[in-house]
Amino acid sequence: MITVGIVGASGYTGGEALRILLRHPGAQIVQATSESNAGHYVYAIHPNLRKQCQLKFIPISELHPCDVLFLCLPHGSAMRRIGQLEGMAKTIIDLSADFRLRNPADYPAWYGHPHEAPQYLERFVYGIPELHREAITRGKFITGAGCLATTSILGLMPLFKHDVLAKREVFIEAKVGSSAAGDTPHLSTHHPERSGSVRSFQPTGHRHTAEIVQELSFGAPPTVHFSATAIEAVRGVLTTSHVFLKDGIEEKDVWKVYRAEYGTEPFIRIVKERQGIYRYPEPKILAGTNFCDIGFEKDPRGSRLVVMAALDNLVKGAAGNGVQAMNVACGLPETTGLEFPGLHPV
Amino acid sequence: MITVGIVGASGYTGGEALRILLRHPGAQIVQATSESNAGHYVYAIHPNLRKQCQLKFIPISELHPCDVLFLCLPHGSAMRRIGQLEGMAKTIIDLSADFRLRNPADYPAWYGHPHEAPQYLERFVYGIPELHREAITRGKFITGAGCLATTSILGLMPLFKHDVLAKREVFIEAKVGSSAAGDTPHLSTHHPERSGSVRSFQPTGHRHTAEIVQELSFGAPPTVHFSATAIEAVRGVLTTSHVFLKDGIEEKDVWKVYRAEYGTEPFIRIVKERQGIYRYPEPKILAGTNFCDIGFEKDPRGSRLVVMAALDNLVKGAAGNGVQAMNVACGLPETTGLEFPGLHPV
Amino acid sequence: MITVGIVGASGYTGGEALRILLRHPGAQIVQATSESNAGHYVYAIHPNLRKQCQLKFIPISELHPCDVLFLCLPHGSAMRRIGQLEGMAKTIIDLSADFRLRNPADYPAWYGHPHEAPQYLERFVYGIPELHREAITRGKFITGAGCLATTSILGLMPLFKHDVLAKREVFIEAKVGSSAAGDTPHLSTHHPERSGSVRSFQPTGHRHTAEIVQELSFGAPPTVHFSATAIEAVRGVLTTSHVFLKDGIEEKDVWKVYRAEYGTEPFIRIVKERQGIYRYPEPKILAGTNFCDIGFEKDPRGSRLVVMAALDNLVKGAAGNGVQAMNVACGLPETTGLEFPGLHPV
Amino acid sequence: MITVGIVGASGYTGGEALRILLRHPGAQIVQATSESNAGHYVYAIHPNLRKQCQLKFIPISELHPCDVLFLCLPHGSAMRRIGQLEGMAKTIIDLSADFRLRNPADYPAWYGHPHEAPQYLERFVYGIPELHREAITRGKFITGAGCLATTSILGLMPLFKHDVLAKREVFIEAKVGSSAAGDTPHLSTHHPERSGSVRSFQPTGHRHTAEIVQELSFGAPPTVHFSATAIEAVRGVLTTSHVFLKDGIEEKDVWKVYRAEYGTEPFIRIVKERQGIYRYPEPKILAGTNFCDIGFEKDPRGSRLVVMAALDNLVKGAAGNGVQAMNVACGLPETTGLEFPGLHPV
Repeated sequence: MITVGIVGASGYTGGEALRILLRHPGAQIVQATSESNAGHYVYAIHPNLRKQCQLKFIPISELHPCDVLFLCLPHGSAMRRIGQLEGMAKTIIDLSADFRLRNPADYPAWYGHPHEAPQYLERFVYGIPELHREAITRGKFITGAGCLATTSILGLMPLFKHDVLAKREVFIEAKVGSSAAGDTPHLSTHHPERSGSVRSFQPTGHRHTAEIVQELSFGAPPTVHFSATAIEAVRGVLTTSHVFLKDGIEEKDVWKVYRAEYGTEPFIRIVKERQGIYRYPEPKILAGTNFCDIGFEKDPRGSRLVVMAALDNLVKGAAGNGVQAMNVACGLPETTGLEFPGLHPV
Repeated sequence: MITVGIVGASGYTGGEALRILLRHPGAQIVQATSESNAGHYVYAIHPNLRKQCQLKFIPISELHPCDVLFLCLPHGSAMRRIGQLEGMAKTIIDLSADFRLRNPADYPAWYGHPHEAPQYLERFVYGIPELHREAITRGKFITGAGCLATTSILGLMPLFKHDVLAKREVFIEAKVGSSAAGDTPHLSTHHPERSGSVRSFQPTGHRHTAEIVQELSFGAPPTVHFSATAIEAVRGVLTTSHVFLKDGIEEKDVWKVYRAEYGTEPFIRIVKERQGIYRYPEPKILAGTNFCDIGFEKDPRGSRLVVMAALDNLVKGAAGNGVQAMNVACGLPETTGLEFPGLHPV
Repeated sequence: MITVGIVGASGYTGGEALRILLRHPGAQIVQATSESNAGHYVYAIHPNLRKQCQLKFIPISELHPCDVLFLCLPHGSAMRRIGQLEGMAKTIIDLSADFRLRNPADYPAWYGHPHEAPQYLERFVYGIPELHREAITRGKFITGAGCLATTSILGLMPLFKHDVLAKREVFIEAKVGSSAAGDTPHLSTHHPERSGSVRSFQPTGHRHTAEIVQELSFGAPPTVHFSATAIEAVRGVLTTSHVFLKDGIEEKDVWKVYRAEYGTEPFIRIVKERQGIYRYPEPKILAGTNFCDIGFEKDPRGSRLVVMAALDNLVKGAAGNGVQAMNVACGLPETTGLEFPGLHPV
Repeated sequence: MITVGIVGASGYTGGEALRILLRHPGAQIVQATSESNAGHYVYAIHPNLRKQCQLKFIPISELHPCDVLFLCLPHGSAMRRIGQLEGMAKTIIDLSADFRLRNPADYPAWYGHPHEAPQYLERFVYGIPELHREAITRGKFITGAGCLATTSILGLMPLFKHDVLAKREVFIEAKVGSSAAGDTPHLSTHHPERSGSVRSFQPTGHRHTAEIVQELSFGAPPTVHFSATAIEAVRGVLTTSHVFLKDGIEEKDVWKVYRAEYGTEPFIRIVKERQGIYRYPEPKILAGTNFCDIGFEKDPRGSRLVVMAALDNLVKGAAGNGVQAMNVACGLPETTGLEFPGLHPV
């Protein structure tokens, strides 16, 4: 039985890690930290865990060694604590943005401040198993990926990797629910303001762009034109991406490329139906699941390929992917604890 | 042209007063105060007013005399300022709870603190024109009514007044949207928490109960069993009330009672259809309107009458009712500025 | 391994039975019928089951014997087929309304037509394990319960059973999501019309009233004043009920009564907190779970007790409760397959 | 007083024309047709018009001559009736797609069938006043524009017209609410399926592309890469468009171009704020209004310009724009009847 600690367990990502790991047959949560909620039951913050979990939050100062440590701290916090936390676990899985980028120069460029522990950057594996399964198996330091980055990258990777695109350029429009903004109330997330909104919160300059460029650089960095829009949803991401196929590449070739990469992946589903109302990926049916659903359609009037990818930002976009990576790192069956199939209707 | 000032114009009630009065052909908004937003354009806070209004917020200290002053301050604030504001306008319309109750003892009982200016209580008219039109015409001091109270009272008043009930007792379940909680972000209104919720925020003890008792006391105070539930909506209230009819009172008699009271009321509609999907009051089609829609159904298995009433909490439940009262007080046609019919679908 | 068939598996209740039973370690779905979708994969209708299930729908005519048969047919259909289906399984679990009422006279009274197989009524157990666990263990014929009835009954049963009420009378206001209306499109469920609505679809005369009266008749039938309102949600029920406690009964006594009945129930949680934003039952965090959460608050100004109960209408209100009953009937641990804890935020 | 008839008045577009024109001081609705609802009050279908309008639907066969006829028929129907309707009014405003495209060959190409009255195509003006005000003034035949086309075109026109783009190419991602799908229930708009969905209903091949190409052809047709996604909303469109600016063109130059085109337009607002939560166009605050809000942001890492445009698909995207065109055609002040400013919060 793997012993697990969750640092920063009162936030949404930490809560989701708790939910998943509580039912994980190969892992046991032995500690969960929250500075502001220390001493309270975790179900006081995560009401779905009532009668599921008798754990109380502890302060980070009371943390003791365990096998796997999930860091669910606010961005900027893990890089300041990594030296101190390193010795607490055999495997560290950081779900913040602090160790996602390999190039230290990307931090001032995209996050507006230098990295405070750049020596760790090359030790971390970008922890999407579909991309770096081998490295995750060997790694002690695993970083999660941005939710919009994960959706974009998983949707596009086979096309870039298999070199079927006419240009190494992509336009990505990401639509995302409110939970991606975290658990701290602001006017921007106040229900009367946020409800029903279609808010262009980051038409340019979104930080996840850096991850997408990094992970789609097969040979050379692609040009990524990224925009993000907040929509009415609590959970869920849908990215709509536009690329151009090389002459002669048809939909059946695209199918082959996706099958080659994802044919045996347990959490990737190609969704492309001729009929019905769920012809393409739909994030709402993925709430609570670790799936990333991917679909595509070639424009019959040209060589444009539109790629749609969907996932739950808190699961495959955060905690679920982290557990999947933990399973890989610890030699457990990769889907352990991640079997929830999602609801319909919902 | 009536000159109008709005005190506390950055909140939701104040914003709605601005929206309505900007289009009011007989009134002109000459000033709007907000301490925290002084110096900013009102459209910076109320984005619907962009290109509609070039007014800037001023601090309350810069207020000057005008004909009508709307007070849209937080509860507890108007009672502390009334002495100072009294001289600023011929008519004061307070939309807070500070002057709604006639009996000073009701404030400690329901609001938990003594009233700070009890001498004003008897000078204020409870400003629902359908109840107190005559008094509003003569009054200088007009108080708005609670949104849940207005819905409950308008739905039930004819039954209590015309003495068709077997018992002076009523069970009221009020369902209300998030804007009723105001414009200050809290965890309880954080979108991921509030979205889709069905929250029993006040099963007992809701303050509006006091107003309902006060206004339905024809002869003697009724027994009011009130509960309030927050539901997924930004605007809108629906109250579902249960009373018992005297023996022999049938639906046709109830129709008569409602027609007698409301037959000529411009903002009350009796909604009771045999078919279609809008057979009873539906708050969503009332968003932005000053209507209160009322319907009822007698239980064929007994003498229970279920009364449904709906309105927009920010309009007929607050600012719109205030403008209606202003029209009455100033001798204008009562519907002036309040003609928006509502949207469908929406 | 128990072999299970689902008759009428393309509807929402049938789909939910599929979802739950696919992950049930002690059961195997061997057949799923749908007349209109025969020959198609179940995931064509239930997109959450893609890559989870390779079953195809068959027509009911191709059904063969199995251990447990779930009937998820439209109301009125099971009573016409029961004679033919009876021999197909050791245990029949009917999720329609056809066998819920013990008294044949209740069918013309509440459903508007005589029962077509009244001889079966007394053979069926009303399959809520919290009420009839013992009888379910012995029964071949188990009926599910109405979703609004289940919520109401579970919320109120301890009070009626333990005789703490001053009157055998209750006012119930049920709020329910759109999935309770089934999977057939109508104008009333057309998104532009149904979205955001607060629709009093059954102020009086709701059929579930009959079940509530039946199951709360400890000694004598109670008087049940029931109203139902459709709100913005896909899944979820919240009932708000008002009863009056006997003199001297306080909240601590009510706690005792609930603990006595539900202290060891795995799917009942008493939710009553002094602080936080989830102080009372909230249906949204129950989506996909088999919990029924129950809370209560005594009006400090009288003897009224308000009881709030919440569940997912498709799970504890239908398929999940059916699986729980199956577990009881088949001697399996009662929570098998029903461990999903629900999501937060959602 | 202009007399107006509305043909096909029971649909959403027709209902919106009714709502707007009922309050229009220069127009009087004298007739409204609906085949299936003939004889019923219009408020039976459009519940917001209760107590606002005593008109009953008539069949189209009972239509008599009037000044302006709005055609709100399903696509394909107006082209079959135009010969018969032409003589009924001085001005015909068709809100369907039947006369939007100037080139008859575009109909088989985009609509899959030949045009049945191609001789009318050149007689119709594409009725967006911001584009063709002069021609509308002279025209008898005015066609409305597609809601997604209107949003896209108004957002992009100044850039194409003023030749500030490096390439005549644009990527458009349109997000749209459910009312755009009309008033006929389908499984795809059944609330449990449609609620909360993010559905890529037309990744390629959307018919509105043809209008966008037509109207942005200043000199030569542009290349338009269009995708459409249905999101959780009843009303509202937001288009997110990506173009590339010529070298040396900065945001201040883009401001100039928009000001040059739209500086005096009453229904266009440029929304581009440095702070606040409504920094860019937000469709929800436009519900019921005739505004098209437009914003833009240049990517500091390149020459990409992202343009966001928003409107209410039933108003500026349909009936409101039609009334605006009527005002222009009839010599009335252009904003008459279209003054509703929209709600906040909502």
